[in-house]
Amino acid sequence: MPAPKGGPTMTAVNLFKQVSPSVYLIVAAKSEAALQSGKSVYEGSAVAITPTLALTNCHIIKGRRAVVLVQNKKMDAGIVVASDPRSDRCVIASQRMKLHPVSGVRPYSDVAVGEKTYSIGNPSGLVGTLGEGIVSGLREQRGVRYVQTSAPISPGSSGGGLFDEHGNLLGITTFKIDDAESLNFAIAAEDYWGKPKPKKHRSRAKTDDEK
Amino acid sequence: MPAPKGGPTMTAVNLFKQVSPSVYLIVAAKSEAALQSGKSVYEGSAVAITPTLALTNCHIIKGRRAVVLVQNKKMDAGIVVASDPRSDRCVIASQRMKLHPVSGVRPYSDVAVGEKTYSIGNPSGLVGTLGEGIVSGLREQRGVRYVQTSAPISPGSSGGGLFDEHGNLLGITTFKIDDAESLNFAIAAEDYWGKPKPKKHRSRAKTDDEK
Amino acid sequence: MPAPKGGPTMTAVNLFKQVSPSVYLIVAAKSEAALQSGKSVYEGSAVAITPTLALTNCHIIKGRRAVVLVQNKKMDAGIVVASDPRSDRCVIASQRMKLHPVSGVRPYSDVAVGEKTYSIGNPSGLVGTLGEGIVSGLREQRGVRYVQTSAPISPGSSGGGLFDEHGNLLGITTFKIDDAESLNFAIAAEDYWGKPKPKKHRSRAKTDDEK
Repeated sequence: MPAPKGGPTMTAVNLFKQVSPSVYLIVAAKSEAALQSGKSVYEGSAVAITPTLALTNCHIIKGRRAVVLVQNKKMDAGIVVASDPRSDRCVIASQRMKLHPVSGVRPYSDVAVGEKTYSIGNPSGLVGTLGEGIVSGLREQRGVRYVQTSAPISPGSSGGGLFDEHGNLLGITTFKIDDAESLNFAIAAEDYWGKPKPKKHRSRAKTDDEK
Repeated sequence: MPAPKGGPTMTAVNLFKQVSPSVYLIVAAKSEAALQSGKSVYEGSAVAITPTLALTNCHIIKGRRAVVLVQNKKMDAGIVVASDPRSDRCVIASQRMKLHPVSGVRPYSDVAVGEKTYSIGNPSGLVGTLGEGIVSGLREQRGVRYVQTSAPISPGSSGGGLFDEHGNLLGITTFKIDDAESLNFAIAAEDYWGKPKPKKHRSRAKTDDEK
Repeated sequence: MPAPKGGPTMTAVNLFKQVSPSVYLIVAAKSEAALQSGKSVYEGSAVAITPTLALTNCHIIKGRRAVVLVQNKKMDAGIVVASDPRSDRCVIASQRMKLHPVSGVRPYSDVAVGEKTYSIGNPSGLVGTLGEGIVSGLREQRGVRYVQTSAPISPGSSGGGLFDEHGNLLGITTFKIDDAESLNFAIAAEDYWGKPKPKKHRSRAKTDDEK
């Protein structure tokens, strides 16, 4: 896992310039033919962590064999190289296109309620949409750790990135609570690298959640 | 009424640590039996202002005789000691559990449109959710004074706290306008201590509202 | 077009005091009689750019001959002096009331994703509501340029102002995407002064939009 970057915080303007190239549009369909025709095409987002790998949500690509990564008019077919549908964590590899990886990833146990956050994704076809908010809570549900945030997400944001003020990846924006305001959830980025979960940390997460 | 705290503003991270222990989860049901069974249980929030008293909204506990205050795995039965259902202001007393009161309360006439705000409550069962926003307006409706805020609230936030950057209580988050974005309202905290409303202030509130 | 103001940024409290007098409530109805009766009355917002002219959206006043500009208990009939219904840009002139113009207007090409924004309008009859957010994107659709923002808007915000941290007008808040979170759009203020659109800029906007 890439180490988190420290140093001075960035303005939102600079953060967007530095970080948005790491967030890709995913276009997925049942077949190549469907993708070409543009019918029943599903859109989501993915975040590059190496020049070939990007993190995303499984629900974007489930049952859709034709998957394309798009950014800045370049595109490439993507192959699912790791998947855990139960927790909605999937990893995609680009075939030929060199991806622009994020510069750092934050461990979940370092994240504090109240930290400033930025969401970058492609909601409603609006490519490269920037939102801001804070960490609203730290939650664990059925063994999956989430950063709860007030940074806006919408359909199409799935698989997008939640970042801190240094441009470090905090999580992958995955779902929101319906009929509620700004109750949004990102799967802990750290948990895409296996799930060590030391005992000490697990008990702390339970206290936060109080369920 | 506790005097408001001044001094330097807090970061959201520190504010949450200091202030969230004063916000309690309320669980209410028609009877003890219903509460135990967990059926038709209603959830809301309350904010401690003394070691025994907490402010909340009447609509959380109306018609529900079994009321419990919960925080950090501790709980206690609550008794309604004052109520004004028309304005939705109710005060609950804990029986045995010592509450953690807020450190300061802001008079309504001091609050300015544009000030930073934080909402802390338990929306959708998400205990201790932090939101941020600003004061969007100052309104008076049928004799009740409200702080209008863009800080997010959702079902379950009722009875929660709206705070300023010093951790002072501004109001009790009470309702939001449906099918609108971030039009949320907190009853002025000051108005839980009777309602002096000097003439000068009343006329100013009317001008703000222009209704 | 008024030049944009530079210098130090304002706090939200000061910005609201300085800028909100330039944002007017529009009340519109099919006829004078309908307006007087208060039935089928439509509300929106408008932003003064000179002592007699205010920018707004055509959809507020379309098919409604009786139009009134209101602020701080003063009101005056408004006359549509320029209109481009396709792009929803309309300009209203006050008859006798002297308007309070904004102090500066930002050219669209200067605006950067990530900049702090403030929305001021009259959503849901809440006169002079302040919201804050950031520039989430810069989009061009069918020849119209928009500032996409996370600053909240709601029905009644139409025709209101989107401002930067110096109190300069960025755009006129016009529409939002339904069933989504904080995907709001303001027509570029600059485009109310004709539409020069140099080639260089157009190509940049296309890249941002990627449609």
